[in-house]
Amino acid sequence: MRVIADFSLVPMGVGLSVSRYVAACHEVLEERGISHQLHAYGTNLEGEWEEVFDAIRACHERVHAMGAPRVSTNMRFGTRTDRVQTLQDKVESVTRKLS
Amino acid sequence: MRVIADFSLVPMGVGLSVSRYVAACHEVLEERGISHQLHAYGTNLEGEWEEVFDAIRACHERVHAMGAPRVSTNMRFGTRTDRVQTLQDKVESVTRKLS
Amino acid sequence: MRVIADFSLVPMGVGLSVSRYVAACHEVLEERGISHQLHAYGTNLEGEWEEVFDAIRACHERVHAMGAPRVSTNMRFGTRTDRVQTLQDKVESVTRKLS
Amino acid sequence: MRVIADFSLVPMGVGLSVSRYVAACHEVLEERGISHQLHAYGTNLEGEWEEVFDAIRACHERVHAMGAPRVSTNMRFGTRTDRVQTLQDKVESVTRKLS
Repeated sequence: MRVIADFSLVPMGVGLSVSRYVAACHEVLEERGISHQLHAYGTNLEGEWEEVFDAIRACHERVHAMGAPRVSTNMRFGTRTDRVQTLQDKVESVTRKLS
Repeated sequence: MRVIADFSLVPMGVGLSVSRYVAACHEVLEERGISHQLHAYGTNLEGEWEEVFDAIRACHERVHAMGAPRVSTNMRFGTRTDRVQTLQDKVESVTRKLS
Repeated sequence: MRVIADFSLVPMGVGLSVSRYVAACHEVLEERGISHQLHAYGTNLEGEWEEVFDAIRACHERVHAMGAPRVSTNMRFGTRTDRVQTLQDKVESVTRKLS
Repeated sequence: MRVIADFSLVPMGVGLSVSRYVAACHEVLEERGISHQLHAYGTNLEGEWEEVFDAIRACHERVHAMGAPRVSTNMRFGTRTDRVQTLQDKVESVTRKLS
């Protein structure tokens, strides 16, 4: 089952700057070869269910290992059985209607 | 790794009433013996990482099998390494401060 | 326009325990007479659009005033034009199908 | 109070394709001159509290007017009192750490 997702991870107990934790999580996605895209309030990603959620778990573990005792993530994810849709398809589907 | 979570699942392409899909997802959680609690805009659950996300996956599969071609879920989830915390702990921690 | 909502507020830069900030936010809702219900990973509320979002703004202001320099909230909210639905209706709609 | 936000709007009761509703909402943001950025699972925006939430309300109204009897939105938003931060700042803060 393919999943398209977006998540925003918040490390807690480590002060105000979260960017180095977000960057570490991006390295986790890179290492795993998972298609992803950073935006200003989260990260898009896509893949098979297991690889997506295993990667998010690895992000939590990495951020804990960096010293954050608590990590809270907000995630949107969608699956569909009618057709295959990629992150790129979703953006194009909207932008075509904006012109 | 224990996880405390809250999710709201939206089946798409099946009209306005989503309650029977939410009910089906609760049956999935019941069948798996996962601790959960329904509220007016989602469901709390807790467990080991794998059992929580396997259950959410089973919910998506169940809802697709009921005829929804597209399912979009919004989920919050937290892990912590400093101590064990249950759903009940979280509610009590706030309500103690409200008295 | 009526809105049914659920939110989870995370104060940042104030350590690991967030319950006193969540409790302060509940006092804000109480003071304003807004119908709400605490759960383990957020708070349900309902009301007219303005009162709901003014209350959430007042929560952010209160939490900043308590010393949190950064506040990040995750919120779900729904509006509908086909019929009036309350928080209680939503829970009952699912629980009826569970029996 | 400035707010940085990200939202994902789901019209319900209108079938599987949501892109024309997302596009209509982007037109609402354009008309109001609100800084925003589309991504594959939502839209970033920033501005003063009132203009951001008034715009989201106008999106709900527009989507209802297009025929969707029910609209459910998931939104993340953050405020901070320590410094001013833009959408662009947030992306750059992470990407600097990725190089």
